[in-house]
Amino acid sequence: MKDLISLKKAEQLLSTINIKVLSKKRVSVFKACGRILAQDIVAPIDVPFFSRAAMDGYAIRAEDTQNASINHPHILKVKGEIINGNQNIKEINPGEAIKIYTGCIIPKGANAVVKLEDVEESSSTIKLFKTILPGKNISYKGEDIHSGSLILKKGRILKPHHLGIISSCGFKSISVFKKPTVSIIATGNELIEVGFNPSIAKTLNSNSPMIYCALKELNCNVLYLGIAKDYEPDLIKKLSLAISKSDAVITIGGMSVGKMDIVSKVISKLGKILFHGVRIKPGKPCGAAIIDNKPVLMLPGYPVAALLTFKKFFPIILSKLMDNSEIPGKDMHFFVKPKTKISNPNGLTHLVNVSVYKYLAEPIKVSNHAKLSTMLKVNAIVEIPENINEITPNDLVECTFF
Amino acid sequence: MKDLISLKKAEQLLSTINIKVLSKKRVSVFKACGRILAQDIVAPIDVPFFSRAAMDGYAIRAEDTQNASINHPHILKVKGEIINGNQNIKEINPGEAIKIYTGCIIPKGANAVVKLEDVEESSSTIKLFKTILPGKNISYKGEDIHSGSLILKKGRILKPHHLGIISSCGFKSISVFKKPTVSIIATGNELIEVGFNPSIAKTLNSNSPMIYCALKELNCNVLYLGIAKDYEPDLIKKLSLAISKSDAVITIGGMSVGKMDIVSKVISKLGKILFHGVRIKPGKPCGAAIIDNKPVLMLPGYPVAALLTFKKFFPIILSKLMDNSEIPGKDMHFFVKPKTKISNPNGLTHLVNVSVYKYLAEPIKVSNHAKLSTMLKVNAIVEIPENINEITPNDLVECTFF
Repeated sequence: MKDLISLKKAEQLLSTINIKVLSKKRVSVFKACGRILAQDIVAPIDVPFFSRAAMDGYAIRAEDTQNASINHPHILKVKGEIINGNQNIKEINPGEAIKIYTGCIIPKGANAVVKLEDVEESSSTIKLFKTILPGKNISYKGEDIHSGSLILKKGRILKPHHLGIISSCGFKSISVFKKPTVSIIATGNELIEVGFNPSIAKTLNSNSPMIYCALKELNCNVLYLGIAKDYEPDLIKKLSLAISKSDAVITIGGMSVGKMDIVSKVISKLGKILFHGVRIKPGKPCGAAIIDNKPVLMLPGYPVAALLTFKKFFPIILSKLMDNSEIPGKDMHFFVKPKTKISNPNGLTHLVNVSVYKYLAEPIKVSNHAKLSTMLKVNAIVEIPENINEITPNDLVECTFF
Repeated sequence: MKDLISLKKAEQLLSTINIKVLSKKRVSVFKACGRILAQDIVAPIDVPFFSRAAMDGYAIRAEDTQNASINHPHILKVKGEIINGNQNIKEINPGEAIKIYTGCIIPKGANAVVKLEDVEESSSTIKLFKTILPGKNISYKGEDIHSGSLILKKGRILKPHHLGIISSCGFKSISVFKKPTVSIIATGNELIEVGFNPSIAKTLNSNSPMIYCALKELNCNVLYLGIAKDYEPDLIKKLSLAISKSDAVITIGGMSVGKMDIVSKVISKLGKILFHGVRIKPGKPCGAAIIDNKPVLMLPGYPVAALLTFKKFFPIILSKLMDNSEIPGKDMHFFVKPKTKISNPNGLTHLVNVSVYKYLAEPIKVSNHAKLSTMLKVNAIVEIPENINEITPNDLVECTFF
């Protein structure tokens, strides 16, 4: 960890890694929520597939309403009714109207729909009191989506409205990337698993459930491989298992400069270290590597640092696993003003924990990045780049929900 | 749908409904991501559980370093080493130091840790070159969390850092609310299921996969009951099944004023309508009801309106199902300036689709709320209250990620 690199450089190194891309599978549009699209979606049909009524009312010929007014209403003969789903399509001639409901196909001859509220109905006629323009209350064939148009590109994270659009084009199933399986290895002689009584000189391994959850939020399958001792053969055994069983590996802890911090040393024997040490606060000792074409993210052991570096780097790895898909959360930032001056004297990119209320971000002091409890007050992160020495209440700064 | 109520009133009606609260279950901290806490979390232990080194270095007595300087270094005798997890705790006396690693218990007699980088080591002594203050580089017992303190209240949506904190307090499993099962019933004679070839006068039921996904995003189990015809016995059959099999019901479509819009009419026979019709755009015909102590949300059939009213109302219902838990997404709003004037002339709460770039929100015109494809450009929603006629580029307005 001698040559720290900038956050930008670390991100750039990760976003150009050459790793094994996940395979694809077909899933129902009902099961595709949060999955990553592995195909372009080109509309095979026009949406709507036919011109239809956008309102309940009467299908008419706009020409028949010309110069109609309260004092000189026009009278049209009602020819019948088109009920939703009724395939028995009629046609109208001059002077005629057909009762129609939202979503029904516009009958031949009609070019507008007059709303129910705007006519006076009698048994076999309607009275119209104003001029209706052609096209009124009609959803035209293809006006939402044209057949042949590219709707969504490969790599999109599928949200509800995407699935609405995809299925409105007629797709019942689509190709998505398989969910990645990600292994977690915690390291450190000092650790014991959560739930055991914390014996006097041991530390509960609370980082693993935390990172497990963070991976679940990103829609990953997780394989938790337990705690590796600070002992090379033990770590190698767990790493080999992780590489054979999963698509990506996360190690937690053992990244500092002490003699017990063997993680990066051991990994360098199995693969290629991309970086170890980033000019970032918290999280300086983090790192990344490639073993057998599979990415390994090495998180520091301090909980706050582990979580923030995970959030910074793992989404990039995920995007690479899915053939450069959209990076989860990439566009979910907004702008705030710092409530107080926040200084950044050390030439590091500073990930500042803040509590945002309206457009003001109040920094939450984390005196010690082992203190995860301070994060209870945090709802967002402001990132101060390494070349900015301070931000003030006059600055508008970028912020991400935590 | 004669008496429209305000959005505020609709929200207030929903947030005071009396419905069956979901039961609880215990889950492992590894499996609790996104679940809703059904118990208060009170720390049973101090965290850290013992005072420990926050750095690799030497445990010393701060008194022994008084007035040490580059020119007058103090020399301490190294008594041994405390390795992570080593239970063999030593004690130091005046003039002594013990080598120690991050996370190790501070030996008796010591009250500070001097960093490895700040000493000169020889075989059995270290030289110190500056005064170290008591407490330096020590994480004290209980400094993160005090035993007995309330960490998290019932009702929190569990995020990664919560699970880190909970497990650092020694919990292996916790009580959470069961996932609700939510039924979806689509209605309308005009509908056919997705994947079928759209016949000339039918509409693909794309709302159901969309709302299915939106429910999955909120961590619900979903029971899709298919399409009910606009025919009372058919709708009653599906509603009865939904009420018997699930904790909440969502209907889609059939909420307008036409004679085919029977949903609210039929539901009023089975239970109590809370409201039908809200001064909101889009989504005016939406509604809510209670049948057998179970909530029913009635969404309009237009896709954009269905999705936006779902997002507005269903999180409140979810919170009620979990005994007034935190409302999902409630605090995830931020502030933007409209790029152009946006008018709101109709006395409705206007949910404006916008594309936010930096702090500017550009309204995305949705000429027709059947056109879901316009939503592809939308990344956030700005809400203009019904008593505000317009917002201008000088206003700072509240915005939610879509």
